[in-house]
Amino acid sequence: MAAEPNNWGRFGPDDQRGTLNLLTPAVVLDALRSATTGEVLSLAMPIRGATSSPAPQSVPHLPGRPLPQHFMSVDGGDYAAGARPIGAGLRVADDALVVTGHGTTTHMDALCHMWSGDELYNGHPAARVRSYGATRCGIERVGGVVARGVLYDLPGRLGLDHLPVGYRVEADLLAEIATPAPGDVAVVRTGWPVVWQRSREEYWSGQPGLSADAGRWLAAHDVAAVASDNAAIGGLNARGLADEPIEDDLHLILLHRHGIHLIEMLWLEELAAAGRTTFVFVAAPLRIEGGTGSPLTPLAIL
Amino acid sequence: MAAEPNNWGRFGPDDQRGTLNLLTPAVVLDALRSATTGEVLSLAMPIRGATSSPAPQSVPHLPGRPLPQHFMSVDGGDYAAGARPIGAGLRVADDALVVTGHGTTTHMDALCHMWSGDELYNGHPAARVRSYGATRCGIERVGGVVARGVLYDLPGRLGLDHLPVGYRVEADLLAEIATPAPGDVAVVRTGWPVVWQRSREEYWSGQPGLSADAGRWLAAHDVAAVASDNAAIGGLNARGLADEPIEDDLHLILLHRHGIHLIEMLWLEELAAAGRTTFVFVAAPLRIEGGTGSPLTPLAIL
Amino acid sequence: MAAEPNNWGRFGPDDQRGTLNLLTPAVVLDALRSATTGEVLSLAMPIRGATSSPAPQSVPHLPGRPLPQHFMSVDGGDYAAGARPIGAGLRVADDALVVTGHGTTTHMDALCHMWSGDELYNGHPAARVRSYGATRCGIERVGGVVARGVLYDLPGRLGLDHLPVGYRVEADLLAEIATPAPGDVAVVRTGWPVVWQRSREEYWSGQPGLSADAGRWLAAHDVAAVASDNAAIGGLNARGLADEPIEDDLHLILLHRHGIHLIEMLWLEELAAAGRTTFVFVAAPLRIEGGTGSPLTPLAIL
Amino acid sequence: MAAEPNNWGRFGPDDQRGTLNLLTPAVVLDALRSATTGEVLSLAMPIRGATSSPAPQSVPHLPGRPLPQHFMSVDGGDYAAGARPIGAGLRVADDALVVTGHGTTTHMDALCHMWSGDELYNGHPAARVRSYGATRCGIERVGGVVARGVLYDLPGRLGLDHLPVGYRVEADLLAEIATPAPGDVAVVRTGWPVVWQRSREEYWSGQPGLSADAGRWLAAHDVAAVASDNAAIGGLNARGLADEPIEDDLHLILLHRHGIHLIEMLWLEELAAAGRTTFVFVAAPLRIEGGTGSPLTPLAIL
Repeated sequence: MAAEPNNWGRFGPDDQRGTLNLLTPAVVLDALRSATTGEVLSLAMPIRGATSSPAPQSVPHLPGRPLPQHFMSVDGGDYAAGARPIGAGLRVADDALVVTGHGTTTHMDALCHMWSGDELYNGHPAARVRSYGATRCGIERVGGVVARGVLYDLPGRLGLDHLPVGYRVEADLLAEIATPAPGDVAVVRTGWPVVWQRSREEYWSGQPGLSADAGRWLAAHDVAAVASDNAAIGGLNARGLADEPIEDDLHLILLHRHGIHLIEMLWLEELAAAGRTTFVFVAAPLRIEGGTGSPLTPLAIL
Repeated sequence: MAAEPNNWGRFGPDDQRGTLNLLTPAVVLDALRSATTGEVLSLAMPIRGATSSPAPQSVPHLPGRPLPQHFMSVDGGDYAAGARPIGAGLRVADDALVVTGHGTTTHMDALCHMWSGDELYNGHPAARVRSYGATRCGIERVGGVVARGVLYDLPGRLGLDHLPVGYRVEADLLAEIATPAPGDVAVVRTGWPVVWQRSREEYWSGQPGLSADAGRWLAAHDVAAVASDNAAIGGLNARGLADEPIEDDLHLILLHRHGIHLIEMLWLEELAAAGRTTFVFVAAPLRIEGGTGSPLTPLAIL
Repeated sequence: MAAEPNNWGRFGPDDQRGTLNLLTPAVVLDALRSATTGEVLSLAMPIRGATSSPAPQSVPHLPGRPLPQHFMSVDGGDYAAGARPIGAGLRVADDALVVTGHGTTTHMDALCHMWSGDELYNGHPAARVRSYGATRCGIERVGGVVARGVLYDLPGRLGLDHLPVGYRVEADLLAEIATPAPGDVAVVRTGWPVVWQRSREEYWSGQPGLSADAGRWLAAHDVAAVASDNAAIGGLNARGLADEPIEDDLHLILLHRHGIHLIEMLWLEELAAAGRTTFVFVAAPLRIEGGTGSPLTPLAIL
Repeated sequence: MAAEPNNWGRFGPDDQRGTLNLLTPAVVLDALRSATTGEVLSLAMPIRGATSSPAPQSVPHLPGRPLPQHFMSVDGGDYAAGARPIGAGLRVADDALVVTGHGTTTHMDALCHMWSGDELYNGHPAARVRSYGATRCGIERVGGVVARGVLYDLPGRLGLDHLPVGYRVEADLLAEIATPAPGDVAVVRTGWPVVWQRSREEYWSGQPGLSADAGRWLAAHDVAAVASDNAAIGGLNARGLADEPIEDDLHLILLHRHGIHLIEMLWLEELAAAGRTTFVFVAAPLRIEGGTGSPLTPLAIL
C-alpha cells in the first residue's frame, strides 16, 4: 500500500469543492448564532429496507429506482432459535445496507452527479468519472456543511398544504420570504412529500420545484447549497424528467455551473411547523470516495 | 399503505433512546458555545469501495469483515464510449453502495447492537431484533447528536504516537485530562489507526482501548456518547475479541446497561493536532429503520 | 480453518434431499434416452439488472420484490475514458450481481423455503434456518437435477394462448396428457408469462396454477421436481397469495410434505412450440450453502 | 415497454457466441452417449456467504476479491422469536445473494470478459461494454453447454497430488492423455484447490496452469470450452497475474481470439477419483444480460 497523505480529517479551499468554500470559519461561527432554542430536528426520511416486506415501498421515492435493502447478518431471532452467544454471553446484531441514494432517500448530490458536454463543474474532465468512482468532484470532497439555513416555506407562504404539481417557484416569491447571505443553505419546502401518503400515483404525476430564474437568483446570492423536499430541486413532469431546456436545467445551473451542492428528498414538515426562517443547518455525507452522492441525515438546530 | 404518523422529523425523550435524552435543547445551546474558531473537521475515514481494485483494503478495518462495495450504474466512461445524453444533453453519474458498518467504516452503534441475556438496553426484548430489523432500539432512534465534545488525546498526554497494543486506559488518566459534563461526548484518541499505514498485521495484532473502570467512570458522568478511533471502545486481543469478563465488557457497560451510544473507527489525527480539548461534536447516523448502526461522518466544529 | 470433508463434488442419498433421491444413476441413464434431436433450449428468463434504467422492471416478476441489480466494476467505457490496460495491454470487464431469486427470476426452491409448524421437510428443525443460512435443507443439497422432463402444455391442450387467471389445473387434465414415471420432472406450462408483455397489471391480477388435487397426484407419482412458468406452482390471487386452505397449499404439499423441489418462473414458450412431451431436463442451482433457493438456467435437451 | 422478441428460450448460431456454435444438435446427441453409469457429480465449490462469520473466507478464492454475501430476509429464527406466520400458518425463508464470480466462485467467463485493443472477440466493439452491461458478447449469449467432457487429470498422470505452483502444462502432455474432438469441453485438473486446505498462503503463492502452447493446441482442436480447477486457465505468479507476454495470454488466446468460453475454479477431486476420461459435461450460466460471467454449477454425468 502506498503511503497515505494522512489528512483524512481536514478540508480546505479546493477547486473541486465549489461554493462550500464559502463556508469559511467566520461564516460557520456566524451561522451557529442562528440557534436560539437548541431544539434539534432531523430532516431525513426513514430508510426502510426490510426486503421481505412492502416497507421499502412505503417511503417516497421515484418510480423505477432500486430501493434500499437492509439485511441482518445476525439478530435476536438467531439467539431465540438457539444460536450460541460469543464467549461468556455476549449477543450481537449486525447488518448490511444496499443503497442507491438518488431518487430513493434523503441524499446529497456530489458535483460529479450531473453535467453537460465533456466537463464537470470547474472544467474537470468528465472522463475521470469511471466505474471505480469519480476521481474529480466526488462526494468525499464535501466534508461537512455547517451553515445558516434559511427556510423557504412556500406552501406556508401561499396558504397551501403543498405546492400544486406543476408549480414552478419564481425568484420573486423567494425574495419576499428572505434574501440569503453568502454561505447560507437555502431550504426549499414544496410540501410534495405529504402527497405520498394520500396517493403515490399523485406523487409520481410530477413534482413542483424551483424555476430556472429562482435557481439563478439563489446562485447569484452565493448560497452554499440548496436543499429541498422534492426529488430534483427543479420540477418534474409526469415522466419524471425536467421540462426545461438544458440551459435552464436546475441541476446544471446550480451543480454544474456554480458548484452549489444539492440536498434532495428532505422531510421538512416539523421544521415548517416550528415557524423558524433561520436556524443552523448541518449535513455531513458519507465519505464515499468517488461517490456521486450520499444518503445522509441533515439536522436543523433551532 | 397504512397512515404514517407523519413525525419523521421530531425526536423527543423516548425510553428507547437512552442518554441521548441528555441532549436537551439547553444542553445543545450550551454545547454550541464550545465553537471558538469555526473550523470544521471531518472525523470520518474514507469509504473506498472500488471493487476491482485493492482500494477497499487500504482503509483500516477488522479482518474478515465484508468491505464496502461502491458501484457506478452510469458514469463518464459510458459517455466516452458513446452513451447518449438524456434529452438535449444532460449527462449523469449514478451509483450504489453496499456497506456493513461495524468493523469497516467510521460508524455509530445502535442500542440494539449488543446485549447479554434476553433483553436489550432498558429491558426491551431482544427477540424484537429480527431479520427485517430491530423494532426496538434501532439506529433511527438517534436522530442527531449535537453536543460538546471532549477530546481525550491519550497518546498526546503520554508523549506517544499511539497507545501500545495492550494498553487499557484507566479512569484516572481520563480524569487528569478533563471531567465531562452530563451530555458531553467523550472522544477517545488511541492513535491506533496510524499503525495501519505502517503494518496492517500490527493493526490486527490487537487494539488499545478503555478499561472497564474508565467506561464506568464515563457512564457515571452521564456522557451522551463515547467516540473513539479504535474499533470497539474497549481493547481487543489478537483474535479481535475483548479480553474482559462479560461484566466488564465495554459494550455491555456503555451500550447495554447505560444506553450510551458508541461511535467507532474515527479519524482523530487532525483534531488532536488542533490542540483543542473541547469543541462542538455533531453526528447524524443514516435513518435506517431497525438498523444495528450506521456509517456516518462526525464533525468537530472548533 | 477446520479441515474440510473434501467431498464437495459428490451427492448421494441423504435424508435432507427428499425425492431427488429418486434420481438414481439408473434413472438418470434412462432419462438421457429422451433426447432425440439434440437441440438444447434454455428455460430461463433473462436477468436484467441495469440499475439506472427501466430494464430490471421489463422482466416478469412479482410486485414488491427487490429486483436484480447488476453492476460493472470495470468495463469498456473506462478504457474509452482513458483507463490503462493491465500490463502490456490486457483489458477486462468485471461485474457483480445482487439477486433475490423468489418472485424475480427463474429459480429453484430449496426444501427450507417453506414449512408450517416447527419442522421443515422430513422433521428437520426450522430453528436451524437462521440469519447465516439454513444448516438443514439448503439449496446446496440439490447438486444437480438430470431427469426426464414431461411437458404439461395446458394452454396447448385447451387451445388457448395461456390459462385464464383464475384457472386451477386438476389432476384429470394432467393425466390426459401424460402419467409421469418416478423421478420425472413435471414441467407445467400455464402460458402466464406471455401476459406480461400485454399488461403487467394483468400479470399481477393473479396467476393460474395447479390445484391441490393435481399437486397430490404428481406427488403420488413420485416426480423428482415440479417446474412451472408461473410464480408459485399453485395459483395466486390478486394480492399475490395462495387462496387454498393451508392443508391444500401447493408449496406445503410438494416441498414440505414430500420433499419435491420446485422450479418457478420458467420460460416455456419455445419448448411448447417444439411440440415435445418428453425430453431431458437438466437444472443445477448455485451451490449457495444454506440458501433458500437459487436463480438458475434449466435446460431442455430435445 | 417495447415488444419483446419473445425468443428467450432459443439459442442458435450467432456471431457473438464463438465456438459454442460447435455444439450442434448432432454433437449434443453424440455427447450424451458418453454417459455410461448415470452418476451425476457437481463440479462446483460451495458459495459460503454468511457475512458475520469467517465462512466466506473458507472457500478458495483470489486475494482482494469481494467475497459472496448471503443474507436471509426472513428465516426460522424470526419465527422462533415470535414472528407471525402468513395466513393460517405458512412459514417462509427468503434470501439474497451478492456475488462477484471472477476469482471467488466456480464461474464461467463471457466473451466480453477480456480483450486487448478496442475489439472484443470477433470484432465486436469493446465500447459496447458499459456500466449497464455488455450489449455484445454477454454471458446471456451462452444459453447452456451440453457437450462431451474430456478430463485432463494432470496430477494423476504425473503421480502427484497436485501440480507444482510454477508448472505450465504443455500440449504434449495433454496429447498423451487424449485428443479432443470438435465441440468437446476440455476439463483440466491441476489439483491446486487441495492446497487451500493446507495453506491459503501457499494457494496464493501462484497457480499452475496451461501454457500458451497448450491453449493453442486446444483451440486448434476446436474445443467448445475449457474448464479448470485453477483460477485463470493459465498459470499465475505470486502477484496473482499471468507471466506470459500478451500474445501468449491464455484468456486472449482462448476467449478473445477463438471465442472459446472458459469455466474456472471447478472442484474436480471426485471426478478424478471416478477414473473417467470422458463423460457428459453440462453447464448453464445464469442468464445475466450483459454479464461478464456467471457463477454456476457444472455437472458431470458419468
